[in-house]
Amino acid sequence: MPAASSLPPWREPLVRALHRNRSQPFARYFQLATLRPDGRPANRTVVFRGFVDPAAARQSSQAHGHSLKLVTDRRSEKLQQMAYSAQAEVCWYFTKTREQFRLGGTLCCISAQSTLHHETWQALSGAARVQFSWPHPGQDRAPATAFQLSPETEPVSAPPPDDFAVLLFTPDWVDHLELRGNPQQRSQYQQQGDQWQMRQVNP
Amino acid sequence: MPAASSLPPWREPLVRALHRNRSQPFARYFQLATLRPDGRPANRTVVFRGFVDPAAARQSSQAHGHSLKLVTDRRSEKLQQMAYSAQAEVCWYFTKTREQFRLGGTLCCISAQSTLHHETWQALSGAARVQFSWPHPGQDRAPATAFQLSPETEPVSAPPPDDFAVLLFTPDWVDHLELRGNPQQRSQYQQQGDQWQMRQVNP
Repeated sequence: MPAASSLPPWREPLVRALHRNRSQPFARYFQLATLRPDGRPANRTVVFRGFVDPAAARQSSQAHGHSLKLVTDRRSEKLQQMAYSAQAEVCWYFTKTREQFRLGGTLCCISAQSTLHHETWQALSGAARVQFSWPHPGQDRAPATAFQLSPETEPVSAPPPDDFAVLLFTPDWVDHLELRGNPQQRSQYQQQGDQWQMRQVNP
Repeated sequence: MPAASSLPPWREPLVRALHRNRSQPFARYFQLATLRPDGRPANRTVVFRGFVDPAAARQSSQAHGHSLKLVTDRRSEKLQQMAYSAQAEVCWYFTKTREQFRLGGTLCCISAQSTLHHETWQALSGAARVQFSWPHPGQDRAPATAFQLSPETEPVSAPPPDDFAVLLFTPDWVDHLELRGNPQQRSQYQQQGDQWQMRQVNP
């Protein structure tokens, strides 16, 4: 039985895909499906911000984690949807190597008091940080003067704004499909307790 | 009030995005979120097979449709999930022009007796058609001999196999985000009766 800190078996092929597709900035974007409170699914593109050990929310030791980190605006619908259901499914298609990872699991929002919250804010680009000063997402368009556009006016050392949130997505099920090859290769990984079961399935 | 056959206002920017990104074959792939019977979301990449008028399931007049056509294997989990809930959300990110369309709506499976069903089968590539002769998707990997690999052995004129299905996704809500531009542009379209309401919102 692997120790709790060991890596799940799907992490290595996912890291390899990230490496092989690194020439394309959009290889770090994936689609995140959640549930709306009215029972309909929601689906949007988000930016992968790295792997994190869930314990890192306290200790910032990110080396061996297998949760996926993302950032969001607390005013976005994602937070409302997470309050209704933490269940989510990630679909991540790598265009260069033609492979897809589907990851089912749960979302959580880490404490704004944590070191990881502050470190994640400081690691954002100025262009990403300035968006948290913009008017309420999804509401009627505000006049142009309401949008601060220059990243330079937001000092890196400033504390994260109240609307900044860091989410961790922790998978318990992964499906890896490789379209290259004939027939295609498909592997499924299922967490059972502390262990992961892996099997080859038909594409 | 526009006639029922007129195009919804989001179709023109979507067609423009398809045209501007046409050099990338994966521009015709999008992510489809549905609901699993256990209440968790599902999310996978599918291939866009063109716009269809829902009435085309009878008359094959596809010129003015705004449903999105896809194909699937009846043995896939999508069909089970549609029996539980027809609700779905498409997330379609165009990497070259850096714009995202989110489309919320419902899925339906068209009759295997319809002209559209047969026409769609005949329009598939041989490589796509042969996959319907493969062993049950998602089950334990079958031996290599179970996979027919050569498209040539499947004549185009043959009737569609029983496991071939054509799905129509009909949106009633669309969110179009253009990341180019500062600040970003975001438009939302909501169907109300026979009409579509459009508004500009904050990104």
